[in-house]
Amino acid sequence: MAEPPAKAATVYDVAARAGVSIATVSMAFRRPEKVRETTRALVFDAAQALNYVPSASARGLAKGRTGALGLFSYDYLVGYRTAPRAPVPVGRRTAVPIVREGPDELCREFPLYVDEIQRGMEVACWELGYALMIGGPSHSRSDAVVTDIAGRVDGLAVFPQTLSPEALAHVASRIPVVAVSEPPEDDRASHVTVDNRAGTRAVTEHLIIDHGRRDLLFVGGLNPAEAKARFAGFRDALRAAGLRVPRKPLVPPTRPDDAGRAVVALPADLPLPEAFVCATDEVALDVMRILADRGVDVPATVAVTGFDGVAAGRVVRPALTTVRQPMVEMGQAVVDILLAQIAEPARAPEVRELPVEVVLRESCGCPPRSAIWRS
Amino acid sequence: MAEPPAKAATVYDVAARAGVSIATVSMAFRRPEKVRETTRALVFDAAQALNYVPSASARGLAKGRTGALGLFSYDYLVGYRTAPRAPVPVGRRTAVPIVREGPDELCREFPLYVDEIQRGMEVACWELGYALMIGGPSHSRSDAVVTDIAGRVDGLAVFPQTLSPEALAHVASRIPVVAVSEPPEDDRASHVTVDNRAGTRAVTEHLIIDHGRRDLLFVGGLNPAEAKARFAGFRDALRAAGLRVPRKPLVPPTRPDDAGRAVVALPADLPLPEAFVCATDEVALDVMRILADRGVDVPATVAVTGFDGVAAGRVVRPALTTVRQPMVEMGQAVVDILLAQIAEPARAPEVRELPVEVVLRESCGCPPRSAIWRS
Repeated sequence: MAEPPAKAATVYDVAARAGVSIATVSMAFRRPEKVRETTRALVFDAAQALNYVPSASARGLAKGRTGALGLFSYDYLVGYRTAPRAPVPVGRRTAVPIVREGPDELCREFPLYVDEIQRGMEVACWELGYALMIGGPSHSRSDAVVTDIAGRVDGLAVFPQTLSPEALAHVASRIPVVAVSEPPEDDRASHVTVDNRAGTRAVTEHLIIDHGRRDLLFVGGLNPAEAKARFAGFRDALRAAGLRVPRKPLVPPTRPDDAGRAVVALPADLPLPEAFVCATDEVALDVMRILADRGVDVPATVAVTGFDGVAAGRVVRPALTTVRQPMVEMGQAVVDILLAQIAEPARAPEVRELPVEVVLRESCGCPPRSAIWRS
Repeated sequence: MAEPPAKAATVYDVAARAGVSIATVSMAFRRPEKVRETTRALVFDAAQALNYVPSASARGLAKGRTGALGLFSYDYLVGYRTAPRAPVPVGRRTAVPIVREGPDELCREFPLYVDEIQRGMEVACWELGYALMIGGPSHSRSDAVVTDIAGRVDGLAVFPQTLSPEALAHVASRIPVVAVSEPPEDDRASHVTVDNRAGTRAVTEHLIIDHGRRDLLFVGGLNPAEAKARFAGFRDALRAAGLRVPRKPLVPPTRPDDAGRAVVALPADLPLPEAFVCATDEVALDVMRILADRGVDVPATVAVTGFDGVAAGRVVRPALTTVRQPMVEMGQAVVDILLAQIAEPARAPEVRELPVEVVLRESCGCPPRSAIWRS
């Protein structure tokens, strides 16, 4: 057994040694039945080696000033405000209308990328007895809203392009800040991101090697840094396969749909490739909808792939082949980093890159997976 | 045109006269393009009649002390912690694994009732420049967490059975509180609910009259007050049809699934009725899964209906016929009431009952709707 360190071990030391999050350490001691036996063993072994004794409240270790964390997200909810839901009236026997549903509006009906990250933060906050305060750019008041929030939390997560660089720097000088899904930059923030380049390379190679597609087009997304890394992975795959390597992605124009959401609009005269490799699932879903409207068979004529792993991609037909980010785990990692920095304010900003996986469904040309439950 | 009132009209007066929420009034003045033309006309007519002049910031009217609202929800996220996701490895060409998905776990993959209410509150807060602080019962610390939250917000929404009556009364004596989906009780809170009884009666009558089912069983849910109102609607329908009216619902036992979520477990020796009318969509999805496991054909042999309108019910096959609550709108109504009470603390608690609608899909015996997009 290792010599106990001179300084009393903390929950962070145990988490680092066991290779788990502090949330898991806390859970292993307080609700062991919620933690897998193998994980529990890792935690207890690490705790024993470090002579760690859990405090009555693991939360107290990193409580900070307010006991709350913040999330500053997109004004992404626009689709909810005015989304037309057009059920078809069938009848009315009592005061209650009876309807059939109108056409699906998948992109806002199912959780998006940002929703899943938020959910991961909620889970981690819940576990540790923290409250989570969420807000986002409201009209032209972004910087005022974020200042409101920052004054009431111990640490803040922000999504790319939600704040001016000045506002971000201002907040980061006062409390720990984690930038989500933005590659590390010369700022004071920590970063949680994924291996965008390798993921896009892997899904592109699947199209080239397993499906024999040779004429591929990369369609960019709304987040420039992310799209750049993914486009680099696309180029890697083409280069390795000896195919012509384009210099630029297709950056499609967007138009607001009925609900005010920016949707991709492919130029009408665009020569169709054999495959669209899209920077995000949302872009891929838009592209699939456009192709369906034009009567193009996906995947027989044109394959389509996405990036993110949102729920809507499982529901569309053909189901969307994608690169899945561990979104909930990313939200949990954000909380993990914030708490570590609240406990140790001098700690340097941290960059954590989480792994991705290619999920094969149907839009790449793979055979349909078994239907949900049973069909 | 009406005589302008002696006291200057507020956004609340305009909202009441136009029959819309204050969020809509605010939006009509600040981002008119986001508001339907007919609604805009209602708002502007009401404003003119009342001689209302919007202030520079409609938010200022009800800003309160903190500029934040709170939501105290369930510890419902348990499923996210340990939910086994078992993708089937296909290969690994680079560092990125390539997988096919394992069996679906719909109930936690798609948003639940509480998630949709939360989303409605987020939308309304966003629109008005408020932050939303969310939290929930954490282990045994419910009352402490809610006190933490209550101290940092101007108003609070709570879900049933998340708080002790003492803690609820304590919070409600300090700030406005809205109880969500709980019928009004002798407390100091406002209530936002729906017409549970009429909705259940309508869906039950659909089974009896349109599908000829005569042997129906009501399966209860976890929220007693809600289940009681829905069971009353079930009895209304049976009585009106001259069928035998049961005195009690089936209150099924539950067991925790792999993810720790309580799922319904139908007794193995339960004689199957011609239709299960379930108190919630979640119960209905559990019942459908059990019937599928036992090889029972839904809806040919046994019909199943739910209540709520969660997204997972659209995705299962057969798709779930249900009574849809306007969940997002309920969350918006919660914010509307809280802001009205923050602006006018002496205002009496308010009860708002929103309408429901029966959504016909397949599990009742109706023909399959057209597939999502195209199949």
